[in-house]
Amino acid sequence: MYVAQLEGREKRPLGDMFGLQNFGVNLTTLKPGAISALRHAHAKQDEFIYVLHGTPTLYTDEGATPLSPGMCAGFKAGSGNGHQLVNESEADVLYLEIGDRSGGDQVVYSDDDLQAEFVDNIFRFAHKDGSPY
Amino acid sequence: MYVAQLEGREKRPLGDMFGLQNFGVNLTTLKPGAISALRHAHAKQDEFIYVLHGTPTLYTDEGATPLSPGMCAGFKAGSGNGHQLVNESEADVLYLEIGDRSGGDQVVYSDDDLQAEFVDNIFRFAHKDGSPY
Repeated sequence: MYVAQLEGREKRPLGDMFGLQNFGVNLTTLKPGAISALRHAHAKQDEFIYVLHGTPTLYTDEGATPLSPGMCAGFKAGSGNGHQLVNESEADVLYLEIGDRSGGDQVVYSDDDLQAEFVDNIFRFAHKDGSPY
Repeated sequence: MYVAQLEGREKRPLGDMFGLQNFGVNLTTLKPGAISALRHAHAKQDEFIYVLHGTPTLYTDEGATPLSPGMCAGFKAGSGNGHQLVNESEADVLYLEIGDRSGGDQVVYSDDDLQAEFVDNIFRFAHKDGSPY
């Protein structure tokens, strides 16, 4: 699902290049039409994005917010307010995304029958009723 | 000490604006002649910087490395290799700095008689022999 939209997303793991373990920093490109992820919220892990180029649209419970270079957004763990970036423009979007690696994280997807648990440094996915995909 | 060099440094705590607690993200400006900090290394906390504008010089045990916009560097906890950015140019430098807030952190300053311990979310400073300042 959403495979075409996720195929237009490319992540370069900058933090991993330096062996960082406490948080990750990705330099992510979204081609026109691509999305950052399904709209989701983390229980334990904070997230932060900083726009370098292009004009992504941020979707949260409050609706659509247009972003441009130099703008940033933070997504505090436990808020329950799902977030997603969508490139609705005709040009590439480039942004930095930062997230920590707190254990015991759970992810709820706002608009889809999907949830995930962060166990042994891997996310495991299931339907919202807990049944596996 | 180094007061003039640190006065030319301005940090905007972007992550705190969104209530993030697991890591900090600062948008930091260095005026010409200003430094990011005394050269130092963390025992537990990872650090990462991404240059947005200007040409800071990175100092580590390997010496001086000129940086420019789009370049980044990560400083893995426990390496013991101290780092510092110095603005040796005539123009302002702007960069993002990210660091986590792992407890039990200790900081050793490479070139100065200074060390720090992260206790109760505050850094406490002392001489390298443990005596207080």
